[in-house]
Parts: sequence; structure tokens; C-alpha cells
Amino acid sequence: MRHLFNPLQCFLLLFPIAAFSAQADLIVSGRWVVTMDGSRRVLENASVAVNGDHIVAVGPTAEIVKNWTAKQRIDVSDGIVAPGLINTHTHAPMSLLRGIADDLKLQDWLEKYIFPIEAKFVNPDFIRWGTRLACLEMMLGGTTTYTDMYYFEEVIAETTKEAGMRAVLGQTVIGFPVADAKTPADALQRTENFFRKYKKDPLITPAVAPHAAYTNSDQTLKSCRALANRYDRPLIIHLSETKRENDEMMVKRGMSPTKLLESLGVLEGRTIAAHGIWLDDADLDILKRRGTGLAHCPSSNMKLASGIAPVTKILDMGIAMGLGPDGPAGSNNDFNMFEEMDLAAKLAKISTMNPQALPAMQALEMATITGARALGMEKEIGSLEVGKKADMMIVHTRRAHAQPLFNPVSQLVYALKASDVSDVIINGKIVVRNRRSLTLDYNAILNQASVYGARIAAK
Amino acid sequence: MRHLFNPLQCFLLLFPIAAFSAQADLIVSGRWVVTMDGSRRVLENASVAVNGDHIVAVGPTAEIVKNWTAKQRIDVSDGIVAPGLINTHTHAPMSLLRGIADDLKLQDWLEKYIFPIEAKFVNPDFIRWGTRLACLEMMLGGTTTYTDMYYFEEVIAETTKEAGMRAVLGQTVIGFPVADAKTPADALQRTENFFRKYKKDPLITPAVAPHAAYTNSDQTLKSCRALANRYDRPLIIHLSETKRENDEMMVKRGMSPTKLLESLGVLEGRTIAAHGIWLDDADLDILKRRGTGLAHCPSSNMKLASGIAPVTKILDMGIAMGLGPDGPAGSNNDFNMFEEMDLAAKLAKISTMNPQALPAMQALEMATITGARALGMEKEIGSLEVGKKADMMIVHTRRAHAQPLFNPVSQLVYALKASDVSDVIINGKIVVRNRRSLTLDYNAILNQASVYGARIAAK
Repeated sequence: MRHLFNPLQCFLLLFPIAAFSAQADLIVSGRWVVTMDGSRRVLENASVAVNGDHIVAVGPTAEIVKNWTAKQRIDVSDGIVAPGLINTHTHAPMSLLRGIADDLKLQDWLEKYIFPIEAKFVNPDFIRWGTRLACLEMMLGGTTTYTDMYYFEEVIAETTKEAGMRAVLGQTVIGFPVADAKTPADALQRTENFFRKYKKDPLITPAVAPHAAYTNSDQTLKSCRALANRYDRPLIIHLSETKRENDEMMVKRGMSPTKLLESLGVLEGRTIAAHGIWLDDADLDILKRRGTGLAHCPSSNMKLASGIAPVTKILDMGIAMGLGPDGPAGSNNDFNMFEEMDLAAKLAKISTMNPQALPAMQALEMATITGARALGMEKEIGSLEVGKKADMMIVHTRRAHAQPLFNPVSQLVYALKASDVSDVIINGKIVVRNRRSLTLDYNAILNQASVYGARIAAK
Repeated sequence: MRHLFNPLQCFLLLFPIAAFSAQADLIVSGRWVVTMDGSRRVLENASVAVNGDHIVAVGPTAEIVKNWTAKQRIDVSDGIVAPGLINTHTHAPMSLLRGIADDLKLQDWLEKYIFPIEAKFVNPDFIRWGTRLACLEMMLGGTTTYTDMYYFEEVIAETTKEAGMRAVLGQTVIGFPVADAKTPADALQRTENFFRKYKKDPLITPAVAPHAAYTNSDQTLKSCRALANRYDRPLIIHLSETKRENDEMMVKRGMSPTKLLESLGVLEGRTIAAHGIWLDDADLDILKRRGTGLAHCPSSNMKLASGIAPVTKILDMGIAMGLGPDGPAGSNNDFNMFEEMDLAAKLAKISTMNPQALPAMQALEMATITGARALGMEKEIGSLEVGKKADMMIVHTRRAHAQPLFNPVSQLVYALKASDVSDVIINGKIVVRNRRSLTLDYNAILNQASVYGARIAAK
């Protein structure tokens, strides 16, 4: 019988296994995998294999489990596995001001509520707890990447890393004294320190965020661009959110905000502009030429009655426009990307009086691959493809509000909710499992949020 | 020692207890009670006491528990106790066609999908399972009363009673052969049988539902009204949902649909008209004079690009306009009254370019007391007041998306979700406890929904 142990035979016996069954860290399986790849494939009974921080295989579960052995498996039999959602515009720490001032005119809201409260309360502790609360809500709802613009952005970065979330974090630069900077020069210095600290981080992309054209001097805007380009970092800005902003710019400078930014060279480099409501054709031509990414904020734009961005025209031109819930202190009240998808589709239809405008797939694109493109990160995130970062969510479909299911993409956009997300993986790491955060302390955060709430309400 | 048992002393000893501690079947306590009473009181640390089918006390918990002993208590320490939500327009059994055809023009949607599928599949079994699925979703999401228009409405009634839900159920009358009636005369006969069967039901209000002015003859419309009035029952109708409907009526009859109905006497009696988008001032004057209730369907109106109802004007005139999710087969995809509240507020703001339009309280009114008024049921339901039917929901607020909480009404409309509803009471009976239906078999319904889904998809 000894010849059975012949080394060559052993090699031949083992070879098929060695050749066809590679090692993965994690296999994620569901009833469907919505890939959002180039051909927008939706696979049934499919899986995604992950090694380290990236995806190593996507395909039918039978094939994946034959070819890969995994240290860990997540298998949600009624689940849709989809790319993690990408929030392209928000102000995370404002979670602590959730709903503090609704149904107001923008100026009253800002001047009577937000600015005085921020002046009193915004400090690193507020920022830390606000970011924790925001990350907790976002991750539980399937968001894996977010884009921020606020103060003490280095604290937001630290906290976001703790949470295990991916983010593009824009340090605010604005032409009046704010909580973390007395002058734009201070803010620029703070931004540069921030850039130096987060040079090659797997999760954090630091950015400079001049608040808007109308709240900064030309010189500050130019300095922001120069700093961003020197460190090869993105610039985040509010752009044409209100008609008043546009009208006043026309009166003062004789041109639109977009044209002003273009004339100053501010758009020459990676840029993410939020809202983009009052953009005319000439503005859009500039943004297209410059490759500027845009963030559509339907909830905020509706709630503040700011206007309706020409989304379908923008997307048809090939400009990347993602979705953002904006801040939750009155312009919206949560960070719910499912609601932004649903609303983007419905708002586009009613505003163009065309029920075929912005169909479900296009809404999901905005929340995933197009959002990634708006951030200049489409090579890393936004779809489930081999080589991309392993950022994904699994969404339960066996729900009274989501059965029967004729089309997983329609269901994701029009029927499923953030609360149906069961599991979330970011950069290959499981951060939410069975609707529970593995990285953040739910009870501590909720307690602290309510302490802050009481303190703010007492003022 | 015998004198201690003197009957008079016993009476005196017991009297204070008897006088101040009455017996209730149920006490429901929460962190807040949003009453929606005449002065819209929001009570903190408050309770509602229930006896049989109605409310016997509303007040601070300390006071209620002193004055009432209860067989059963529900105490949700982070909860908002609010009136159950009132859906004023839907097509419940279409739950089985959820999302079968999205992003289409109304005519294609109806003619290529809905009508052929209904012709093939609608029968009492379909109706029964579709209604179960719809009631399950609605009740889990805090809806306690709904308003329906579909076929085999007596099966819907039976099933709704099983579920323990309150409903106004309109048997469809339409000018072409449908699943349950070959002719309008058949449908009218079916409606009369339905009226006779549900004469004094605690939960079911039968109604006649001529589909619309443009799909019925004048004679049928008049017969519907006559039948409704003979039995003192409401009439439900679609009204001015599309511009085309209005334009064609102007061409054919030289008047608006509302004016046609008025000229035929169809509005003389309790009426609930759905959509009401293309109503002019003269139409609104008629509807106001006739006391017609309206149902606003923001999701459906946006998704089908039907138009935007002049809601703030309608409410300012004192016309009762409630909210409805419409059917889930493409005009919407679920029965989510939380989303309709949020959307009604946002749509009113953007369409009037006024962020103060339709504030949170008014959206909640539409979903509760104003909805009740639209149905002619404001004396029974729509608010938490002594003597009213015990229809209520409890909504958890200790959620990452709902903390901190500055205002419970704002939170209900803009931040909380259907999935935050923990408990639902209808007509004094607990039908949902800790997010589980006590009256419907969740698994059996979900299984059957997916069987129907597969069968329909295969065609």
C-alpha cells in the first residue's frame, strides 16, 4: 500500500484543490448581488469574496464556494448584496441639532438658530459625539462613504476612523470667525495640518472646504484651490443652492457663482460642489469641462424650498451627480440615503412631468457608482467588482413592505428602507452585523445625544 | 374587635379607592402623548386609559395610574403615543403587484401591465392574500384606518376584520367589465349586498366607489350616489388626477370633472375624492360647499408625474384633505404613511417655494384628525380624546436617526419611520405588540406573497 503515498501522486491528488480553491477572508452571499458594474449586472444566488480590504471574486454562489474557502461567511438568504451607499454631501456633527428648527425661512433658520447654537456649543467634544451619532446612523442604514463639510474636521476624521467608515472630510474655510478658526488664514493652516496628518489613510480623504463663493474672498478661494492641488486633495464647496445667492452674485460681480469660480481657477482640480440648483447651461458646460462632481440633495432642497436641481439634464451631459442628505438640523432630519434615492427619482419625475425620468437604476447609480465618480473615487468604490474596495451592504427583502419582489433594483429604491439593512462591510471589515454596530457603542452614543439635546434645549 | 367590620366603616374605607381608582382594560404610557385634540396638546410622561373600544382618560401618567387600575399596561419609556394614522386612499390588494411596473407613462403602465395582470389574476384568493399583506404592512407601520377602492370589496372587508383594522371600503363601479362585475349594474348590486352585510360593523364602513367621472356614465354616477345615500354610506371617487382627465372632460362635456359631478348631484352626500390635483378655484368652492373630503397622494402624484395638488390652498379653505399612499403597483411601492407625511410637507414647500408651507404639525394633522374629517369620522377617530375610539400607535424614539429629540411632532414627521412603530391598538384591541402582528400570520402571508410574485412574474 506504500505506493499510495508517492509524493507525485499526492501532488496530483491535491493539485485540483490547490488550483481551484483559493483562500478568502470573507464570502458574502445573498439572493441577489446588485453589482453596479459596467453592465449593471444583477446576479441571482450570488456571492462576493473578499480578501483584506478588497473584492477578489463576484459570481454565482455555487461557483464562488467551489473556488474559494473563506475564514468567515455571511449568508443572508433573502438578502440583496449591493455596493455600500455613498453620501456626497453632509454635515455630520449637526446630528446633535437634529430637527431643532424646522419649517423656517433659510435666513431665520441660520441666524436665529444655527449660528447662535453653533457659536455656543461647537467644540471638539460636540464634534466627536455628533460624528459618532452620524456615523452610527449612516452605517446602520447602509452608507459606507460620506462627504462632510464642518468644523474641527480632524476630530471628525479620528472619529470616523474609529467607526471604520470611509469619508471625504472637508475642513471649512469661511470669511467670518467660526468655532475652529478666527480667520480664513487660520482655517487654511488647520486644513494644511489636516492634510499632513492624513497623507495615505485607507479610509480618510481630507479635503479643503471653502463654504461657498459668496462667503469667501477671491483670494481665499484661490488659496483653497492652491492648497488642495499642492496636496492632491479635493475641494468641497456649496454652489448655487439658492436663487438669492445667484442673484446677489450677478449684482455684485456680474456673473454666476460658477463663472466666478472658473474665472479664479477654483475649478481646476478635483472638486465636489453641493446642491447645484440654479445652474444655467453655461455653468453646466464649465462644470462638465472641469470634471466637477456634484451632490444632489433632494430632501434639503425641498424642505428649505431652495429649488430643484436640473438633475436629468446634468446626468445626461455626463456630469457625475451623487446624492447627499445634507445636514439634519432643519434642512433635513436624518442621513437616510434610501430616502434620498426615492426622493431623487420622484422629484425628477414631477419636476419634468415625465414618469420615465430618473428611473430606479439611475437613482441607485447616483447613490453608488455615480456618487463615487463625483468624489473622484470610482476606481476604488461604487460597485462590486474584482479589485475594488470591499464596501457593501446586505438588505433584507423578506419584509411586509418589500414582498413580492419583481425587481431588486426597484425594490432598493422604492420599497426597501434603511432599517432593512442587516450587514455592512467597509474596506473588507464587517462594521454592522445583524443590524448592530460592531465598531460604535450604541447606548453610549444615544445617551450622550440625549444629554446634548437637553443641554441645547435648555438654552 | 368585631366593630372593625361594621359595614359603614368598610364603605368609608373603600370609598376613596372606589371613587378615585376606576377600572380600565388598558393603560398605554409613553414619554409623550401627542393628542391631536382641539388644542393639539403634547403631554410629557403621559398615558391613555382605554375601556372596551374607547378612550376613558388622557393625562399625565402619575395622575392616570392614581385614578385608574388596568388589566393590562403597555409602557414604552422612550415612546410617542399618537393617534393611529389614517390612510384616506389606497388599493390594498395591489400589494401583490408591488413594484411590478415602475417608471412608466400612466397609459403604458395601465394598459400593458395593470389591466392585463388584473384580468388574469384578480379573484377572491388574490384579494384575500393581497389584503392580508397590505393590512400587515399598514398595521406594522402605525396605520389604524384605511380607505380602499378595489374589487371583491366584501372579501377585503372580511379580511380586514380578521386583521382587526378599521376601514372604509369602496366597492368599485366602472364602465367596463372587471374581475368582479360584468356591468356597472352588477357592481351596484354587489355594492348593495355589501351594504346590507355590513350594516353596523364596529370596524368596517362599506362604501360605493365609482372609479371616476370619466370611466362611468352619468346614470351610473347618479345611481352610485343614490345607493350611498339610501344606506347612509360614503362614496369614494378619483377626481382630477391627471391634466388629461380634465382636458378631455372639458372637450367632451364643457366642464371640469368636479362641475360634472356637481351637476349630477353626485357630491350631495358624504364623499371622499382622491388626488384632487387639477382643481380650479370654482371646483374648490363646490367641494368646500359640499363638504367633500379629499385624499392627497404625494408619492403617487410625484411618481406618476400626475401633478401637484394645491394642498395648502385646500387646507386654508377649510376643506379636509387627508393623506393616501395610493396603490403599490407602480404609483407607489408601499403603504407608508410616515413617508406620505414627510413628502406632503416637503412637496408643499418646494412647490410654493415657501419653507414655512405645510409645517410638521399640519402634516401630522393630515395623517390623523384631518384625515378623519375627510372620511366623515372625526367624532370617532383621529385624536386621543376621552370618548373616542381607542386607535393609537406607539413609536420608539431611542433610535440613532431620531436622537436628540427637540420636538416630538417634528420627529414623527421628519425623522421617525414606520419601522419605529412598536405597538398598535385599534378599537381598544392590541393588534401589534413589540413590532409583531398579533392578528395576522406574518410567515404565511410573506410566503404566499412570494408564491404569487413568482406566479405573476412567470406570465
